[in-house]
Amino acid sequence: MKRNVLIIGAGGVAKVVAHKCAQHNDELGRIVIASRSVAKCQAIIDSVRAKGSPKLPAELEAHALDALDVEATKALIRETESQIVINVGSAFLNMSVLRACIETGAAYLDTAIHEEPGRVCETPPWYGNYEWKHLDECREKGVTAILGAGFDPGVVNAYAALAAQRHFDRIDSIDILDVNAGSHGKYFATNFDPEINFREFTGQVWSWQNGQWTSNAMFEVKRSDDLPVVGEQNLYLTGHDEVHSLSKNLDVSNIRFWMSFGDHYINVFTVLKNLGLLSEQPVKTAEGLEVVPLKVVKAVLPDPASLAPGYTGKTCIGDLVRGSRDGKPHEVFIYNVADHEEAFAETDSQGISYTAGVPPVAAARLIASGQWDARRMVNVEELPAEPFLELLDAMGLPTRIRDERGDRPWNQF
Amino acid sequence: MKRNVLIIGAGGVAKVVAHKCAQHNDELGRIVIASRSVAKCQAIIDSVRAKGSPKLPAELEAHALDALDVEATKALIRETESQIVINVGSAFLNMSVLRACIETGAAYLDTAIHEEPGRVCETPPWYGNYEWKHLDECREKGVTAILGAGFDPGVVNAYAALAAQRHFDRIDSIDILDVNAGSHGKYFATNFDPEINFREFTGQVWSWQNGQWTSNAMFEVKRSDDLPVVGEQNLYLTGHDEVHSLSKNLDVSNIRFWMSFGDHYINVFTVLKNLGLLSEQPVKTAEGLEVVPLKVVKAVLPDPASLAPGYTGKTCIGDLVRGSRDGKPHEVFIYNVADHEEAFAETDSQGISYTAGVPPVAAARLIASGQWDARRMVNVEELPAEPFLELLDAMGLPTRIRDERGDRPWNQF
Repeated sequence: MKRNVLIIGAGGVAKVVAHKCAQHNDELGRIVIASRSVAKCQAIIDSVRAKGSPKLPAELEAHALDALDVEATKALIRETESQIVINVGSAFLNMSVLRACIETGAAYLDTAIHEEPGRVCETPPWYGNYEWKHLDECREKGVTAILGAGFDPGVVNAYAALAAQRHFDRIDSIDILDVNAGSHGKYFATNFDPEINFREFTGQVWSWQNGQWTSNAMFEVKRSDDLPVVGEQNLYLTGHDEVHSLSKNLDVSNIRFWMSFGDHYINVFTVLKNLGLLSEQPVKTAEGLEVVPLKVVKAVLPDPASLAPGYTGKTCIGDLVRGSRDGKPHEVFIYNVADHEEAFAETDSQGISYTAGVPPVAAARLIASGQWDARRMVNVEELPAEPFLELLDAMGLPTRIRDERGDRPWNQF
Repeated sequence: MKRNVLIIGAGGVAKVVAHKCAQHNDELGRIVIASRSVAKCQAIIDSVRAKGSPKLPAELEAHALDALDVEATKALIRETESQIVINVGSAFLNMSVLRACIETGAAYLDTAIHEEPGRVCETPPWYGNYEWKHLDECREKGVTAILGAGFDPGVVNAYAALAAQRHFDRIDSIDILDVNAGSHGKYFATNFDPEINFREFTGQVWSWQNGQWTSNAMFEVKRSDDLPVVGEQNLYLTGHDEVHSLSKNLDVSNIRFWMSFGDHYINVFTVLKNLGLLSEQPVKTAEGLEVVPLKVVKAVLPDPASLAPGYTGKTCIGDLVRGSRDGKPHEVFIYNVADHEEAFAETDSQGISYTAGVPPVAAARLIASGQWDARRMVNVEELPAEPFLELLDAMGLPTRIRDERGDRPWNQF
């Protein structure tokens, strides 16, 4: 039974994680939040207390931490007796936080792939460049490391595993569809860290098609779908973490990720990209100052956390799976619909942060109970999907399924 | 008879100025080019020699200079015995270069209004904020300072003076129309320093209407005109230097400046402006680096000088003047058409640099000959227009006039 959670990061997702951990602190114990800015950590604690999120009288601590500093991170893990680390800080921190977990024995959870500042959209499979190099060491040391345990990657990986185990004899294709049909009312904003958001789209788009890696440009391949609640949507083939583990762990020839974009987003993105303003490589101003353009774009855009109060509308994220069952063609869409306003009412956060922040807490509860304490490094599809989806049903992210028999909760047959 | 020219700046306009000074070095004497980067000055000298521009065996010198340093600028003026200074450096330098001229007695020429880095589109009249504060001192010391002696401001001011003196009894309106119908083949670029280009459009648009200053937003007021050579064009009311002197020096109730923009330019501009990327005020990145977004935009855009080799098409810039003559309504359009490819063939430069760079050399020749050696601070419309336009006819920027009697050279009646 692992207890006491260290949350790394103090952005929008970290705030949801803190609220949700507090709601289940009878299972999870002490909650520590650490980031470069202790003030941001403290603001999250204030929000958690103001909303009355803690189930039991809460131990909540804020700490200043540079999580690139492995020794400092190890010291904080030990000092706070944290047995579960939920890393929802910058994507640049994964390797140093993982290292601290391996050396202290704490369980490691994250929600997105590791990135190096100077590189984007590296050679597939992405996990092979950083995380999976530590597979053997985690197994040898019995360290639990669950990679990509947010919504996507994360819940959609569990949907894929559920489809493979329960709904199909053979799967031909998994198309992960990620739609945000919400409106934040700003001229332009990204729903999570703009730096990470744009980095997803500036390089080549990797997808797994016909059993091999295929490269496209962003906004090159488009599809339209009529989806539950959010209706007709335009989605574009996008590079994304989960394609890189599902292609290894499932025997499926076509795995693609699609994200919805409005024309306005595409226009702004296209202007910025074509001008070179989304580059992660430094440029020099006429005055001789070296600066990474993307970091300046991030600095002028709204803080994603600031979007929460006015955000309306819903998200719909799920797996459209095609294959055969009992010798006949079969298709299911396993999905969740989340509501921005409900997310704000519960956790002071917008829906994108909510969908990313609730699942790692469900995963942490499953580590605490032992069900997901794998004592090795895994991606979500390698773990039992059903206990995870059951917890999510109760934690605000219910799963539904749509197939030829209609639209219903995932576990209603 | 003033001789020897110091050119401040080493951008696209400075290059044209250097070529044109060299073509007339029998009148102008030694040519010195000074900027922060001595390599850029030397590259211009190399271009001048490669094109064979010098009329007489040429004295050409490159110097490194921080022109904000008044003492260094004075020392260079004295050391090089320069009696005419053509300031075509950054718009932030005017006041320090003017100071150096006043204190050494050199004649001062520039092509654009002074600007302070932290301010845009200040209270009208703009010249009153900086330049005209030195009117008395220039007159007392007998220093010649000709403000805004490029094309616009500059030649269009002479067109306005010509209209007032030769074509009208009463002028009701002067609309300066600035069309660049050229194509540089890039996704996006500005034709001169992006920082100065964008600063023109990010604040309020000042125009002189019904005898008073009127404020609009950029791209708020549009007109369409069928112009010589370039045809039908969309132009937008824009703030510009010449409105601020013509409104003082001519008795005209309506003076407006209009610039042509394509939909693509407006889209890129709108995205950048709405995101805050055109701000002249510093922002702080997540890493704590202070940076002015506009300077980063400048750093990623093509160097305007680099556009020259592939630039095709023409510019058309002129004054549409309405009023009455002999008791009847009268309208004239006095204008020039310039060609990007011809400009490149002659001076290794694109047409916008050419139209801005030729006029100050014509003005320098008139200072050298004594005709424009006013021994006070003036705007171009206060000087005799005809000798200026005659020189420009021979120097590559011929003036034409279009009225009810047809389209012909300006001095053909």
